[in-house]
Amino acid sequence: MVAEIISIGDELLIGQVVNTNQAFIAEQLNSVGILVGRMTTVGDRKPDILRSFEQAWSSYDVVLVTGGLGPTHDDITRDAICDFFKTPLVVDQQALENVRRIFARRGVEPKKINEDQAMVPSGCTVIQNRYGTAPGYFFEKEGRYFAAMPGVPFEMKSMVEDFLIPFFAKKGSDYVILHKTLKTTGIPESFLAEQIGDTNQYFPADSGITLAFLPSPLGVRLRLSARARSSDEAKRAIDEVEAKLRAKVGKYIYAIGDEELEHVIGKMLAEHKLTLSVAESCTGGLIADRITNAPGSSRYFDRALITYSNESKVEELGVPESLIRDFGAVSREVAEAMAFGVRTKSNTDIGISTTGIAGPTGGTAEKPVGLVWIGYSDKNETLALRFNFGDDRRRFKERASQAALELLRRKILKLE
Amino acid sequence: MVAEIISIGDELLIGQVVNTNQAFIAEQLNSVGILVGRMTTVGDRKPDILRSFEQAWSSYDVVLVTGGLGPTHDDITRDAICDFFKTPLVVDQQALENVRRIFARRGVEPKKINEDQAMVPSGCTVIQNRYGTAPGYFFEKEGRYFAAMPGVPFEMKSMVEDFLIPFFAKKGSDYVILHKTLKTTGIPESFLAEQIGDTNQYFPADSGITLAFLPSPLGVRLRLSARARSSDEAKRAIDEVEAKLRAKVGKYIYAIGDEELEHVIGKMLAEHKLTLSVAESCTGGLIADRITNAPGSSRYFDRALITYSNESKVEELGVPESLIRDFGAVSREVAEAMAFGVRTKSNTDIGISTTGIAGPTGGTAEKPVGLVWIGYSDKNETLALRFNFGDDRRRFKERASQAALELLRRKILKLE
Repeated sequence: MVAEIISIGDELLIGQVVNTNQAFIAEQLNSVGILVGRMTTVGDRKPDILRSFEQAWSSYDVVLVTGGLGPTHDDITRDAICDFFKTPLVVDQQALENVRRIFARRGVEPKKINEDQAMVPSGCTVIQNRYGTAPGYFFEKEGRYFAAMPGVPFEMKSMVEDFLIPFFAKKGSDYVILHKTLKTTGIPESFLAEQIGDTNQYFPADSGITLAFLPSPLGVRLRLSARARSSDEAKRAIDEVEAKLRAKVGKYIYAIGDEELEHVIGKMLAEHKLTLSVAESCTGGLIADRITNAPGSSRYFDRALITYSNESKVEELGVPESLIRDFGAVSREVAEAMAFGVRTKSNTDIGISTTGIAGPTGGTAEKPVGLVWIGYSDKNETLALRFNFGDDRRRFKERASQAALELLRRKILKLE
Repeated sequence: MVAEIISIGDELLIGQVVNTNQAFIAEQLNSVGILVGRMTTVGDRKPDILRSFEQAWSSYDVVLVTGGLGPTHDDITRDAICDFFKTPLVVDQQALENVRRIFARRGVEPKKINEDQAMVPSGCTVIQNRYGTAPGYFFEKEGRYFAAMPGVPFEMKSMVEDFLIPFFAKKGSDYVILHKTLKTTGIPESFLAEQIGDTNQYFPADSGITLAFLPSPLGVRLRLSARARSSDEAKRAIDEVEAKLRAKVGKYIYAIGDEELEHVIGKMLAEHKLTLSVAESCTGGLIADRITNAPGSSRYFDRALITYSNESKVEELGVPESLIRDFGAVSREVAEAMAFGVRTKSNTDIGISTTGIAGPTGGTAEKPVGLVWIGYSDKNETLALRFNFGDDRRRFKERASQAALELLRRKILKLE
């Protein structure tokens, strides 16, 4: 089956919003053997929407629409769907209860325009919205499928994952396309490519397998794709190539798929029954924020002290004033004293720390913007490593937090 | 004039790459008065490409194509263009010299497939590529315009900025389109819509002004768009409507355009010469992370104490153990004690705090997942407000951090 994805919204046509929904939906459809033949974006005008429905419905087996299902006057997708399928609106009781439940949780009464969201095109299967008030609609007509969902990414995602993909997976298909992403960090793309070498030693050119390098500020992802007659066959092919890749660059691979480093580390800390505390200066709380993104992090994460001022480094972490005076706040000595200080003060097994110059100003010839010292302390050792993460403030923080978590991962695994 | 943007590439249709080119091009076109009517993405197959050209060329004044101009076998956009305009390939001397120069810089000889990139469709104006070997093509036919550019974002961007936009700007246009976004927080979309009321009292339906509501977890953005004969006229029209909107809902508007709440607050704190400290439990460092995203935040931000464990709340913030025992760690009393504790310990003007249940587990009937108390303390008052931000852990943290920063904004501005 081949699909068209239609995105509706003026905010897309004026370039205010980058469309991330299309890529997400495409990848999901691929995983159940549905190719995407075209993606179209139109504005909040009924003639344009109707024309896109007609062109898609006459050419593709599956039409997935996002956007324009909100409660306000510029949301006209539902109206267009009723016109297109020549069907009236009816109340969906479950959607109505969902609206009321969401408003009850906020402690306010829903208004008429909110309750109106429970009006759905007659004849559709309603896709309930776990996170918002606008339900999705699903039509099956003569072996073809039409679904409309809100444009809000997380609302759409849960509908795709919980409703559409299970539905299409159950229907089956002639072949499947599987992707698997291995996430690496701490090694540049060109070094990784060189260590991996010629891909012919992993898979022949006509094997249906491809390997893509996808660099990002937090590391390079290696994406394996396999097209095969069955999930099992595709999975086997990917597993084989993955094993060969791991033999070469395994120590840089910290996670599979969408998993973040903080979740990997959380599992390791819980498994090894280790506790952690954090002392941050230049990363400003980002490391603690990431660690606490993992559910259950209270089992191993005790506290973080975000010591931005010099006084707070002295008062909170017991960093000797003389160290700051003699070596500067951004120094190996202070990074080590911070990691040691937070570990001993909080009585945890491990302490990590950051101190650096996030910029855009504050650098010198000797200590340029981008310089960061990352400290680590456990009962056996206290050390700090030096990095430079460039002059974009946010990217600097992200890369420094990643390097700190990666140092922690390597220490727990006793790598290198 | 109205444009269609066509993106070509299998990597887009499998969801491997998020299409950022479309939003960039759309925004650029708007700035010279060209609306975007549709965006289409197709794969590297000639029939699909030709059909997209035909549909675009028959409906729009401007057709901008990106992707599929590289040197390898799967790049077939040039071939499709020659078919479409029924024109042969000819050598472009300047493009050939560009290919040779780029290879000379790398110290290697160009291969035939590289020099072939200097073959361009006869009759086009060549858009030279400052950063790569693939030139762009520009056609002007009967008052309509067609351009094809590489899909590599920075190569495409320089062609748009250096060639297309100056070209269209010089042609002049009958009108321009300006956008202005007002960011609100702390009020749901439907309440905002009700307080704003009928848009006819702000602008008549045929005024060329539109108002769109764009909700997100951090608040609802109000986007004003004006279409007018000149920039000045559009700006005046937007200013007028903005003033009327502010009269109704001004207190919820915290920023314009892309500005984040943490930057707004940073300016306010610096201006009022106020210092800030933060005590976070459930937000886990996100508030501190956001505050330190603002360059120069060290002027007003002293420290944050991320007290995840109960012991750390007592040890770091001086929260009385009896409060935690009697009211629980997630309570008004503890939130107030945390904000007061961090403010007095760090000797700052203001302290803010969060304590809540980020989930997915740990909730009870009385204190469900999503519950959060946000504390505020200055020398005159200490208080805490109760919210519920739902059961998605990350979104909970984002919304709680936004509410804490918004409380701070309102206190500084002495709102309500």
